Amino acid sequence: MRTPVIGIMGAAAPTPASYAAAEKLGRLVAERGWIVLTGGEPAGVMAAACAGAKQVAGSLTLGILPGTSEGAGPDVDVAVFTGMGDARNAINVLSSDIIVACGVEGPGTSSEVALAIKAGKPVILLGASSAARAFFRSIGEWLPAADPEEAVRLIEQKLEDTQ
Amino acid sequence: MRTPVIGIMGAAAPTPASYAAAEKLGRLVAERGWIVLTGGEPAGVMAAACAGAKQVAGSLTLGILPGTSEGAGPDVDVAVFTGMGDARNAINVLSSDIIVACGVEGPGTSSEVALAIKAGKPVILLGASSAARAFFRSIGEWLPAADPEEAVRLIEQKLEDTQ
Amino acid sequence: MRTPVIGIMGAAAPTPASYAAAEKLGRLVAERGWIVLTGGEPAGVMAAACAGAKQVAGSLTLGILPGTSEGAGPDVDVAVFTGMGDARNAINVLSSDIIVACGVEGPGTSSEVALAIKAGKPVILLGASSAARAFFRSIGEWLPAADPEEAVRLIEQKLEDTQ
Amino acid sequence: MRTPVIGIMGAAAPTPASYAAAEKLGRLVAERGWIVLTGGEPAGVMAAACAGAKQVAGSLTLGILPGTSEGAGPDVDVAVFTGMGDARNAINVLSSDIIVACGVEGPGTSSEVALAIKAGKPVILLGASSAARAFFRSIGEWLPAADPEEAVRLIEQKLEDTQ
Repeated sequence: MRTPVIGIMGAAAPTPASYAAAEKLGRLVAERGWIVLTGGEPAGVMAAACAGAKQVAGSLTLGILPGTSEGAGPDVDVAVFTGMGDARNAINVLSSDIIVACGVEGPGTSSEVALAIKAGKPVILLGASSAARAFFRSIGEWLPAADPEEAVRLIEQKLEDTQ
Repeated sequence: MRTPVIGIMGAAAPTPASYAAAEKLGRLVAERGWIVLTGGEPAGVMAAACAGAKQVAGSLTLGILPGTSEGAGPDVDVAVFTGMGDARNAINVLSSDIIVACGVEGPGTSSEVALAIKAGKPVILLGASSAARAFFRSIGEWLPAADPEEAVRLIEQKLEDTQ
Repeated sequence: MRTPVIGIMGAAAPTPASYAAAEKLGRLVAERGWIVLTGGEPAGVMAAACAGAKQVAGSLTLGILPGTSEGAGPDVDVAVFTGMGDARNAINVLSSDIIVACGVEGPGTSSEVALAIKAGKPVILLGASSAARAFFRSIGEWLPAADPEEAVRLIEQKLEDTQ
Repeated sequence: MRTPVIGIMGAAAPTPASYAAAEKLGRLVAERGWIVLTGGEPAGVMAAACAGAKQVAGSLTLGILPGTSEGAGPDVDVAVFTGMGDARNAINVLSSDIIVACGVEGPGTSSEVALAIKAGKPVILLGASSAARAFFRSIGEWLPAADPEEAVRLIEQKLEDTQ
């Protein structure tokens, strides 16, 4: 079986709580040997998740970039340059076995959560606002997580279910 | 100046109210000589908006399809086949001067509204649920419309502003 | 049946012969009521084909642009902004019923001819160099045309065959 | 500096010589610690390059797939699912620091070589036919290699030049 890929999504300018959650989640995901996939940019949740993962020896971070050649963060091991702008959000979703949004605080993350629900991917909302939870409950299926540890437990369950 | 392109977005399986709004909006947009852009499929809001537009002589409907060669609805005059699946939602947004969502009832429409806000496009939410209005208020700028007539007045204002 | 879409491809900096052929071909295609599809930019074969088409009353030109919001030529009636750079060449191909290359003089056109052959689309090479003809003969099927009039006759045959 | 990514391109149904060259090149690239990028499918040059790389302990293979969820070969470590069909060829090119075509025997590879020349990427043609060499000489810059060893020497030079 290929190594699971966990997509960690979130705002480029997140709240401090979402930033901290993404960093911890990145570390926990990497400790389990899974690949961390993000949008690859050196900002916000993307940067935090990769930085967390790179605290773990042997970790692998995959960044799916909007640009054609530049702009990957320092903690991205493998950079895929799509040249497609925000249309690459669809690739982030398809290439992740499970998607975790650390806060749903901006339109980019919102589009990824929506595309993931559309694609039938398992989606975990970590620290989402009550407005985000109410809205996404109205359009499809997802799981809430109160903290990174709970998100990892949900990922483990989902990976077992799909084996 | 190029003919304005109005993107009319919405669910493939909308409520009857959203379907009726899309059909009327398609007609009103076409009566003003603007191009109607949709996702091109023969279902829901996409089909209704195109059907409404084609009640008007000389109207032009543009469908941006997810597939490679088939699946455009009968009221689509010009079909663009992207072969990109839901990643084409980004093209729908970029190719529209203004986006109107007739209901935000499914994940595809949600991703389009989010991408449009991200791209800085004028977005009008017509008949959105209170959950959708509350959530999208939390992530960016958009305008509410109570009915297709109000949506068209807002479009006219926006087009004047950007001239 | 939807109006046929004829993709006219070629270099942004073509030879004078290819430029002239594209302009004439655009006019001949438009005179038959078919839609002219190009890469939409105000340069070379793209510009010539659209200019030729717009000499015909009631013609329709469709440009599939690499950028997100600007850069469509003045003779493009409907501009689709992909934001995907050269990846949009695949959309040009999928959205055309038949592809005509007016010269194969640059890498962009070469990629479109190759993608069209891969997609199984009818491809006509008009005024291709002997090197281009020899190479594309080695990788797949296409039809040669000596001038725009012959290209149009080949298009008419192909459209009849596929009806 | 990020680990160099070497794109190895070629036909899904290559000649035996191109298959053997791709396998050897994959191994040589992996021995130098570089990442092997391919189109990810379990066929032809893509499969051979990945199989060659996976003979080397600690190697990393990256596959950029056309589909949405399936179809990656067994020797692909990290699979990126684009859902974009052949439009993903542009991503293969942008994500590679250097592109090596093992034979230019089909339209997919031809489109990648053309897109790589368009993007200004270093391109090496290994074992290309005289028709392919003559044609690509007419549209842009690339380097010939007689065998995988020479290709690797050219890659080393290019990587030094760009540091």
